[in-house]
This record gives sequence, structure tokens and C-alpha cells, in this order.
Amino acid sequence: MGLIVPRTLKGFRDYPPAAMIPRERLIDTARRVYRSYGFSPIDTPALEYLEILSGKGGEETDKQLYQFEDHGGRRVGLRFDLTVPLARFAAMHVGELGTPFKRYHIATVWRGENTQRGRYREFMQCDFDTIGTRSNTADIETALVIHDLLTAIGFRQFRIHVNNRMVLNGLLETMGLAERSAAILRALDKLPKIGPDRVIAEMQAQADVAAADAGRIVALSEIRGSTAEVLRQLAQLLAGSSSGVEGMERLGQLAAAVQAAGVPEDRFCIDLSIARGLDYYTGTVFETFLSALPAIGSVCSGGRYDNLAALYTTQELPGIGASLGLDRLLAAMEELGMIEQKTTAAEVFIALFDADHLHDYLRIAAALRASGLGVELFPEARKLGQQLKYADRRGYRAAIVAGSDDFAAGICQLKDLAAGTQQPIPLTADCSSLIAAIRSLLTPPNIDGP
Amino acid sequence: MGLIVPRTLKGFRDYPPAAMIPRERLIDTARRVYRSYGFSPIDTPALEYLEILSGKGGEETDKQLYQFEDHGGRRVGLRFDLTVPLARFAAMHVGELGTPFKRYHIATVWRGENTQRGRYREFMQCDFDTIGTRSNTADIETALVIHDLLTAIGFRQFRIHVNNRMVLNGLLETMGLAERSAAILRALDKLPKIGPDRVIAEMQAQADVAAADAGRIVALSEIRGSTAEVLRQLAQLLAGSSSGVEGMERLGQLAAAVQAAGVPEDRFCIDLSIARGLDYYTGTVFETFLSALPAIGSVCSGGRYDNLAALYTTQELPGIGASLGLDRLLAAMEELGMIEQKTTAAEVFIALFDADHLHDYLRIAAALRASGLGVELFPEARKLGQQLKYADRRGYRAAIVAGSDDFAAGICQLKDLAAGTQQPIPLTADCSSLIAAIRSLLTPPNIDGP
Repeated sequence: MGLIVPRTLKGFRDYPPAAMIPRERLIDTARRVYRSYGFSPIDTPALEYLEILSGKGGEETDKQLYQFEDHGGRRVGLRFDLTVPLARFAAMHVGELGTPFKRYHIATVWRGENTQRGRYREFMQCDFDTIGTRSNTADIETALVIHDLLTAIGFRQFRIHVNNRMVLNGLLETMGLAERSAAILRALDKLPKIGPDRVIAEMQAQADVAAADAGRIVALSEIRGSTAEVLRQLAQLLAGSSSGVEGMERLGQLAAAVQAAGVPEDRFCIDLSIARGLDYYTGTVFETFLSALPAIGSVCSGGRYDNLAALYTTQELPGIGASLGLDRLLAAMEELGMIEQKTTAAEVFIALFDADHLHDYLRIAAALRASGLGVELFPEARKLGQQLKYADRRGYRAAIVAGSDDFAAGICQLKDLAAGTQQPIPLTADCSSLIAAIRSLLTPPNIDGP
Repeated sequence: MGLIVPRTLKGFRDYPPAAMIPRERLIDTARRVYRSYGFSPIDTPALEYLEILSGKGGEETDKQLYQFEDHGGRRVGLRFDLTVPLARFAAMHVGELGTPFKRYHIATVWRGENTQRGRYREFMQCDFDTIGTRSNTADIETALVIHDLLTAIGFRQFRIHVNNRMVLNGLLETMGLAERSAAILRALDKLPKIGPDRVIAEMQAQADVAAADAGRIVALSEIRGSTAEVLRQLAQLLAGSSSGVEGMERLGQLAAAVQAAGVPEDRFCIDLSIARGLDYYTGTVFETFLSALPAIGSVCSGGRYDNLAALYTTQELPGIGASLGLDRLLAAMEELGMIEQKTTAAEVFIALFDADHLHDYLRIAAALRASGLGVELFPEARKLGQQLKYADRRGYRAAIVAGSDDFAAGICQLKDLAAGTQQPIPLTADCSSLIAAIRSLLTPPNIDGP
């Protein structure tokens, strides 16, 4: 029988350790930050009844749905996001869980996208949402979670852009243009690309908006300045629109609260030009940009919606949430040199230098592990050079080598594989000297002094 | 338009927080232990070419495969285990990764099983393997990982049963019965259920084994006693079988090394009656039983194989691995009262007692988070009783309540929701007194004294 060619499907990826280790670290960080705000984990099935999934993400998404008939003749599909499953989940369980319900969900989704656009057909989403409350406190917390996520990952230079859909909607209402908001938003979304004149022209042509009104709409998106200045200009533009003013007030409260909670001023701005999601979001919207890499787009986005689960239940479930763009962030971290090139998550390598001393190596490894250090013991008594080359390739810095002479002298050799140096360390039953020496080798010196 | 009935597919489960929190904790523990031995994470696609998956797990598995045609007309399937993807992955990447290659893989798999047997169609596997080495050190480490996994999860009373397939195979070789080993093993697997006499009868009937030989085979499985005693009896039975003796020696080395590494004697035994996997395993095999719940079966099993990826590459890849039975373990932990009934992973609840003090609550929350505590701030200024009921239901023990009078006096109230008590705590900018008071409230007293 011939061999089967080992290959993966187009648009699907294997994650070897070098890719998976930073991925797991990022997911761990997100989980820790979500939990630190009282968000709880949930999971839902990868497969759902097709009727739950289809028609929920628009025509494009329907086309991309992986769907088939299961063994029982049911039409089923693989989830294409975590929002539709959340809506279905909330409709089924929110009665017993109670509101507000704060959940995070980190899981794989599938879309049969055109891979020529550099998109993958399998990727992970990393969402958090607070449902069952209209309180602006939830919006404020969403901004704080985004801030803490980015700093916990290691970013210092980034900015969270916040808008509120009620502001523009309120303005459109006062102009009698509420019905045409979808077409107007489509034009407005092109502002950074085509500039104000062509956007105004498009609004006139596509949405039949009077030139003066189109001018005011574009002017709103172009308001810039400090929070106080933006709010001052907004108040003038929105006079007479109660929902516009409410949106503005929520923005003002959010800006003040985020500052009170300790977010530095340069990491937050009101940006009336962002308009995420044509119809889905109804209040606060967020986008987050890395100062070093603005071109990669928003790395954490989200917003407020009025009614999450309207398709499945008559219970009204307003909420707010956001999603961390894992793949985009990992690409950015790679580009910014924030990812260590390691294929091991352990700290210490022990060479199997002399197979007769296997029990000694095992005892040392056990003592180091008990102190919290990860330890890899090489399984074969190959030549030392080969073993150390393996360790170096995996990204180990600390390696322990000990032969009969060392054990007789009550020591082992601790090698610094990066520096190419080694030092003899006394071996005691609890390995305390060795543990201290390893920790000092692995801890980067504090360059600011003690 | 009518509502869509929110429901999940038969055999699939939602995981609400109460189920997901212990699940995440268990997975975190497994990941930490795997990493502490130098195993690195990988992931592979949920969907594979059908030809990669089909025919790999036997007829039963083929029938259970979720398979369909994708958008590009490719026949694809959802992975039904993590071993076949590992084989395919190893065939593609082992050249660049080098051996030994130690990986863990914690991921979802799908099988269209008959749910009447109480099985699920979507479940998680939690595997670790060392590939590319025949060294018994890898077998020893596998036993140590299993031991550390169970103790890290919180079990104290369990036993790892170890056998080596070479022992029985060696015996069969000396009897000229090697060809009939599959049928013999099938009969032998029934030993605990039907007893020695009927097993001997079945071996005679089904595999044409002479009564004396069948008796010796059953005798081998029935050897009991200390490691030394088992090895002594084995040596007699296996005289003349070089591969049997090799298996015996590997068992002996493994027993000695595991003891040297600190595994208590009662947590490990050589058990010649276990015979995991009829044909797949070729050397060491492991099963792990909880002393309190032996009937639930092995919670961590695995073994050594000769050639992982023979279907995809001519490179020979021997290896050894095991798999933690997550669902089984969680069921056992639930039954043994090892799972806290909480639907939050945070430690502290802050009531939004007075909306005018939102900024103060946000500042307190930020200070507590900076110290590593998870904090949920209630988003709505509902009645205090309602807020505390919510906190209690979620499983919070520590709740902070502060109104204008408290802030004026420079204090807040720290409530112990379990005891129904509260104490005033001075509020400073860094909240250090509050943090100390919360930690002391949350730390169970040391009943053994200081």
C-alpha cells in the first residue's frame, strides 16, 4: 500500500510549538484579564443546527458556512462566530443564570472564505460580553478591559477610539434622515480613503442627502481634539436631538470614568469617525489601534447592541462586548519583536550525560519542578554536544550537566547556553543552591539598579 | 417572522460557567504539568482531508466520522482523535522540529457516536507524547507525568498500573502463538468479568491454544504482589524469551526509577493484567485508577508504539504517550466533592451602592486588580439586597459596600457573604489595608497551627 500524502486543507494551519507557545500565552493573558473583571467562561458546541446559524451573518457569511447533513439526517453547520452561539445560549440559559451575565468565550470558528485574500478558514475568536444591562458602567468596564488586555500583553503605545452610534443617529434624526442611515454610514466609512468632498458627493448621489446636511454629517466625523473640546463641539451640532445628546453624555461619562480608573490620557480618545458595524451596534463602539502599527487596523473592537437574542426569545437582552483580534495581535507582536523564539515552555534542560546516574537526574528534575521550574530531561544518553545542541535549538538557556566525578564531588555543572559559560553548583537533597543559581541565571539583571 | 427554537444538537453540550470553570482549571493544570516536563503545545486543524482520517481508527470510527464535501469539492472530515493528526503532523514537520519531539495537544474531537450509551459526540482530548525515541527514560517520564497530573489536580489516593506488551508477546512467541495474539488478547481482556476458567476455555475455542499454554497465559496475567515478587515470578515464566525478558527488564527499570523520583509505593504497580489497545501498543502500557472510584475505569491511559506515522512517511517514529480523561475526571471530582460550586472566577464583588461614587468604586477595583485580585463591579445601582443576592448566587464570599458616609469617614465595609458579617476597613489610595483584609478573609485558616 502506498503512503498517504500528509497535507492540510487550504486555509487551515498547523501550529507547531514556536507558533503555539505565544498563542497560548496570549490566550492565557486574555483569560486572566477577563476573569479579573468578573467575566466567566462558557463554551458552546462547534456544530449547531443549521437554522441557528444561517441567515445570521448576512449573505456573505451564509455562503461561507461549512454545512452538511449529520448521521441523523439533520442539517448542521460549523459556527462562524461566537456571537450567534452566545445569542442562542443566552436564550436557553439566561433565565437560570440571571442578569447581568458576563461571559468570555475563546474558541475556534470556521468560514469557507476566499483564501486569496490572505484569510484563514479556521481561526480563533476571543470575545467578552456583558448582557442584560443598559448601564453605561458596562460600557466603561469594556473600555477598561480593553486597556488592561493590551497592557497585560505588553503594549504601552496604543489608543482606544470610542464613538457612540446614538450621536450620528441623533443628528440624522434631526435631519429626518434616520431611514437612510445605512447608505449614509456606507459612504461615511470611506472618509479616510476618499476624503470629505467625495463622501459628501456620494451621500448626495446614493442617499439623496442635501449638500448642507451631508456637510454637517461629515463635519461631525471630522471633529478632533481633546475630550472636552470634542464634547463642546458636539453639544453645538447635536442641539435639539435628545438621543444624540444622550449618546454624547454617555461618551462624556465614559471618558471621565476611564480617566478616573487610571487609564493614561494618550491611550483613549473620543473618535466620531469610527462607525463599526453598519446595523448591529446601537450605542458605544470601540476600536483599538497600535501606535507602532496603525495600518494593521483595530486589534480589539466591539460595541453595544440593543437586543442580542431577538431571533430566539422575546426576552430583550441589551448588552455590550468586544473581541480581541488574536491573529492580528500575534502578527503585530511578531513584527514588533515581542515574541521570544522558543519551542519549549520549560526553563531548564538536564542532559542524560551518564545513563548510570538516571536516578540522580530524575531526583534533581523532581526537586526543580517542586520549586516551580519546568525541566526537560533528555531521554537518550547521546553525545553531550548533540544534547546541548538540541537544548539550544529549543531555546533553553539553563542546562545542567553532571557526571560521576561531579556527583562524587557533590556538585553539578550549570551551563548558560546563551553565554557559553558554566559554573559548578553544590548539590543538596532539596537542590536549593541549584534552584537559586538557575533563577539568577534566568532573571534578566535589573538595569535600573537595585 | 416566528422565533427560532434555541436548541443544541443531540450529543452536544453547552458549558455554562459552573461547568466551564472547573474544566478550565483542569486544562490549566494539565498544561502546567506537561510544560513542567518540557512538553510543548501544538494544534492542528479540526478539519482534515478525509483520506487522512478514514480507515485509521477501525470500522467503528469510520462510521462515526463527521464527513462532508467542502466549498472546493474536497472530501473532508472532523478529527475523531488527536493521534491521527499527530501522525500526519509528525510526518510533515518532524524533519524541521527534530527528535525527540515532545508535544501536548488539548483539543476538541468529534464522533457521531450512539448517544444512548451516554457518550457525547463532541469532547475534548488531552494528550501528551514523546516521539522519536525508544529510550525507556521516556516511558519513565510518562509515568511521572501521570503521577504529577493526578496530584496537581488534587488526588492523593490513586494507582498507576503498568504493563509491557513485550512480556505477553514474548511468552506467546516461546509458545509459537505470536500470530494468534489478537484473539488471545480479546479473551484475556475478559478476565476480570468472566474469570480464568472461561478465559482459558475461550482461548482454546477461539484461538486454538492448548490448555496448558492457555493456563500459563492466564497465570501470567494473574501474577500479583510487590514489584520484586512480580519480577521474580515473571523471570521464571519468561525464561527463554528474549523479548519477554526485555519487556520485564523495562518494567523493572521503570518501577525503580519512578520510586527514585519520589512516587510513593502505593501509587504505582506492575499489573500484568492490563492490555490496553489490542494492536496499537507494542511496549509499556499505562492505566490509572482512582482508589475512591475504581468503577469509573482508567482516568489516564496510554502506552508505547513502534511507528506512529507509518501511513504517511517511511521515517520510523517510535514513541510513547498518554491521554488524560477529562470528562471522566470531572465527573469523578464532582462525585468526590472536589469542585466548588461557583459561577465566577473572580474573588471580590463591589456593589454599585451609590452611582455618584462610581469613580471611587472604579479606583478601588483598579487597585485590587493591580494586586492580583479579580473584581466584579455591579453595573447597575439596584437595591443593595438585590446586588448582594446576585453576588452570593455567583459564589462570591467577599463583597465591598461603601456609601457617602463611608467615603466621608475614609472607610469601606467588607462583607463576608458566607458568614453574614461585615467589618469597616480604612481606605487608602493603594487600598493596602483592604487588600490585606480580603486576602485574610479568603484564605482558609491553617488548622495545623502556624
